[in-house]
Formats: sequence, C-alpha cells, structure tokens
Amino acid sequence: MTQHYDVAGLGNAIVDVIASTDDRFLLENNIAKGVMNLIDHYRVQQLLQVLPSGRELAGGSAANTMAGLASFGGRGVFMGKVRDDQLGKSFARGLETIGIDFPTPPASVGPQTACCLIAVTADGQRSMNTYLGACRELREADIDEAAIAAATVLYIEGYLWDEPEAKTAIEKAIRIARKNGRKVAFTLSDPFCVERWRSEFMALLKDRIDILFANEAEAMALFESGDFDGVLQSLRGFKGIAALTRSAKGCVIAAGKEVHVLDADPVSQVLDTTGAGDQFAAGFLFGYSHGRNLPDCGRLGTLAAAEVIAHYGARPETSLRARAVEAGLL
Amino acid sequence: MTQHYDVAGLGNAIVDVIASTDDRFLLENNIAKGVMNLIDHYRVQQLLQVLPSGRELAGGSAANTMAGLASFGGRGVFMGKVRDDQLGKSFARGLETIGIDFPTPPASVGPQTACCLIAVTADGQRSMNTYLGACRELREADIDEAAIAAATVLYIEGYLWDEPEAKTAIEKAIRIARKNGRKVAFTLSDPFCVERWRSEFMALLKDRIDILFANEAEAMALFESGDFDGVLQSLRGFKGIAALTRSAKGCVIAAGKEVHVLDADPVSQVLDTTGAGDQFAAGFLFGYSHGRNLPDCGRLGTLAAAEVIAHYGARPETSLRARAVEAGLL
Repeated sequence: MTQHYDVAGLGNAIVDVIASTDDRFLLENNIAKGVMNLIDHYRVQQLLQVLPSGRELAGGSAANTMAGLASFGGRGVFMGKVRDDQLGKSFARGLETIGIDFPTPPASVGPQTACCLIAVTADGQRSMNTYLGACRELREADIDEAAIAAATVLYIEGYLWDEPEAKTAIEKAIRIARKNGRKVAFTLSDPFCVERWRSEFMALLKDRIDILFANEAEAMALFESGDFDGVLQSLRGFKGIAALTRSAKGCVIAAGKEVHVLDADPVSQVLDTTGAGDQFAAGFLFGYSHGRNLPDCGRLGTLAAAEVIAHYGARPETSLRARAVEAGLL
Repeated sequence: MTQHYDVAGLGNAIVDVIASTDDRFLLENNIAKGVMNLIDHYRVQQLLQVLPSGRELAGGSAANTMAGLASFGGRGVFMGKVRDDQLGKSFARGLETIGIDFPTPPASVGPQTACCLIAVTADGQRSMNTYLGACRELREADIDEAAIAAATVLYIEGYLWDEPEAKTAIEKAIRIARKNGRKVAFTLSDPFCVERWRSEFMALLKDRIDILFANEAEAMALFESGDFDGVLQSLRGFKGIAALTRSAKGCVIAAGKEVHVLDADPVSQVLDTTGAGDQFAAGFLFGYSHGRNLPDCGRLGTLAAAEVIAHYGARPETSLRARAVEAGLL
C-alpha cells in the first residue's frame, strides 16, 4: 500500500549552522553584520574552519514548511538536493527526526551541501553567509513520481526557479501532480526572485497553480502594483486560491468571489520574523489537506506564524497541533 | 432651479462647548474625568454657569460628516433639530459658515439645543457632558422632501433610531430618497446603539440601505460575530456597499463580489480619534457622489480620517480637497 501524504514539498535543502561569536570575529573574517551574504565554496570552507562549533539545523523555506506540517501532525515528503557529505546527512537526519520522508538521493559528486553559516552576536544580530551548493543541482531525475501522486498538495518554493535544471524538475513535478488530480501550491519566496521571473510566474499562475502563497512585497512585485488592494484586484481573474500574508496586518485569502480578511494572532514580543511565511504555509496547507474551510486554513497559518516569530529560528519549537487544539481550531 | 446636493445628512444637532479647566474644577463639579457623561437639562444649566467661557463648535456625528464633505468641496444639506436659543443659533452659524444648508426650523418650545460640554484639562483629557435636548425632537415634519430629492445620497446617523419620533422621520426620509431614485447610506454609530436595535437595523439592511458605514465593533455587534472575517462573510448576502473601518488596520469595502482591502493613511501622531468615522464617511461619500470607483472612495475616506485624528476635535482643520489633490486622488 502506498503511503499517503498531505504535502509533497520541493525546495532548497539548506543546513543552518548557528554559532555564537563576537564582533571581533565578524571583523576579522570580513562578515557584514546583520545581513545575508551569498558566499562561494571557497569561502564556506574557510568560514567553517574558523567558526566556533555551533548548532546544525535543517533549514530552507519549503523544508521549514514541512517541519511545521509535521508539528501539526501532518504527513509530508520533501524533495531537495544535498551532497553525500556531513551536512547532507545532518539535513536528512533533521527531516527524519520529525517524521518527514526525504527520498531524494544525495549527490555523490559536485558541490557540497548548501549551508547558511549564521554568526549570532550577543546583541541578537544574525550575520548570515549562504552557500547554495548542492541544492542548485536538483534534476528531473530527483522528482519522485510516487510521492507526488500520493500527496494531496505539491508545494513548490519559488527560489528553485533560479536554476534552469530545477525549473525543468518543477515542470515535471507539476505534470505529475496534475495527471494525478493533485493540487499545486507555489510560494513566490522573495520580491527579487519575482522580479527575475515575473512573466514565467504569471504564466504558471494562469493554468498550473491552484494555491499561491505570497507576502505583500512579493505579490506587489508580481502584479507591479503600488498597493495591496491593487494586488487583490489583479487576482480577481485567478481561478485558484491566493493566500496573501501581511505581517502584523494578518492575511487575506482570496478565492474568486470569496475573500477572507484575517487578523494576525497576537504575539507578546516579536523576536525573529524568519520563517513566518514558511510556517503560515505549513498551517494553511495542513488545514487545506484536511478539508478545512478557507478561513480556518488561514487561521491555522496565522497561528503557526505567531509561534515562530516569538522565538529565534525558522521552525516551530512547540507543538503546533497542541496550540491549534487549544485555540479550538483542531 | 433646484439646488443639487451631493449628500443630505440626517442626525443629531449638537453644539460642543470646549473649555479649559483644572482637575479641581472637575472635582468641585462632580465631573467624571476622561469619559462621556450623559446629563439632564438641570445639570447642563448648572454646568454652563460655572464652566469658564470656551469655544463653541457645531458637532454631532452626521453634521461632522457634512463639515468634512464641505472641506472636500462637496455640496451638502443637513437636517437635525435645535431650539431657537443661543446654542441653536451657534449650531446653524457653524454649518452656514462652511456652506452646508440647514433648512430644519428650530423648535420654539421644549428642550434646549443639545450640547456637549467638554472640560479639557492640561493633561489633554476630555471630560464630556452630553445633553441631547432638542435633537431628540426631530419629527416627520422636519424632513425636507426637496432637499432629499435633490441629493445623490441620503446619509443617516444610527443614533437617531433611539427616538421613536425620529425613527418615523427617518422612514419618511428613506421613502423620499427611494421614490426619487437616490441612494440611502446609514452609519451604525455605536456598538450599544446596534445592540439596542439589531433586528430593526438588520431589517433596514435587507432592502432599504445602499451603503452601510460601520466600524469593526459596530459591525461585529450587528452580525454577532466574534471576528472581522465573520462580519465580511455575513455581508455576502448584502446587496449594497459596506464600508467597514478598522482604525489602524484601514478599511475594507465590500460590494458583492468586489472586496477592497485598503490600508490606513500614515499619521505621525494620533492625538484624538474623535470623528475618525465621521470623516471617513465624508471622504467616501464625496467620492461616491462624484462617481469615483470604490477603492478611491475608500482612499478619500482614509485620507479624511487621517487628517482629523492628527489634531483635537472632530472636524477637519485643513482643506481636505487640497490634501486629496496633493495625494493625487482629485
């Protein structure tokens, strides 16, 4: 009997390596403080040698969403490329621990596993150094037909679109999902990513995406709109469901005539907004794959986002299922 | 030739009397600080004798809206009841100054003109003492058929519904508006007012209101909903336009399939939120009566609300027309 999945995720497989350092370390190693620096493989080797030993956490946008899904008690499978190295094993173990299947075979040649080396200073600032490495090597052959056919929703991270080979892989995944009557969800990932691929994303939206996730900046970039209402009106022709997140303003779910305006869950202190969108998608997709109505899907999303922004890190630290039960949503 | 009006307003005619006092004055005169106290005519006489001389400003919810309309350059007429006393003359003068017609004859007998005696202390607190007086005496005979027939929109303040005679007057006004093919707009005024008249307001909504104005608390009270999205879904059967204000969250305009989500205009410092809803209605109705699309009506509303909350008092202090031109809305 084939395993059933709620969601099959497709995204960048990245390991976060988080270490405490001081400002002197940043200075001596030429790390720009508090921002995201894209680095190459020479630089990652060099930094890994000098970085104090720290925590390794499987990361990446869609993989974080799968972790949230698991925290709700959902069943997920993730496809993304790692190398057969130590970080690759760490990534696989991270998903295994939380019960997310990970069938993609690691590469035995080529760049090493993607990582994000994060130097955290005592003032709470996160200086990130991202090396994309192996996750850029996702190929058509890595698309697991059985897994997609067995999942209610195929969830795709927009970042993948930057690699021509990964794009071909996504197109294959979408064909499999549609052939099997499954739903296709897509997250825009980043306003710059949208700028790079606007016309192709618009073409996807026309007939191959059932659920679109976007934050306000991404959606405004996609529709070249100067305000949120412009986005909402541009979506009136879209036949699927748009789940638009608006940070402290909550979210708007639009599906044809049906528009829901939902507030953000109250958070006593916002510590780190990393992963808010990923966890919103987790809650929404958990609800959707369990047949919940759209406002409840949105509420599960805002509940998950509220959990993750109240602590550091992009994955939930408490049971989202328990929270949702407490909130009367499950 | 009959004068054309953009809006004919129907509401409580109240004069605000604003005077600076100290805490000792409040204590000696038993005025609860910082809140609204409803008072009777004995009390108003007593307070008027002891209150230091202050500014008199025509007020009242729908009358404030008419002042906003005038500030946009709109043409308005207001119906509301005053007595032929000094405050009544002050109210009439207040409307005349800004070019709003005021055909309602003052009462020559009965309670004196309504007033709100506002003691402002040095800490910026406003202690209000409201006497409804003559404005509760609005009768069918006060409804000016020609004025309503000549106005694009009839705008009614929900507070009036508390008086049986005023209710009859409203029903007459609505009949006239409908007979002449005019639109009827209604503002819920206050959550407690909604609690008192929920079933009657729901009946009005069914077939006699074209534009409903409500803030979040009022709308939630009307539809007995625990959250904003519940309100929005309850409105899906409503055939008119709902303009729902949400304080810092902006507003949502819902008209059948068409839903607009508009942000609040940025305000550097919110000083006094009195009149925000009244001015939102002013901007919206100015836009609506000038044939603007719904998002632009909403934007004119949020622009007017932003002006009035940035200073003390419920009427605009700068030209809303000039602001709207500057913002590219006119």
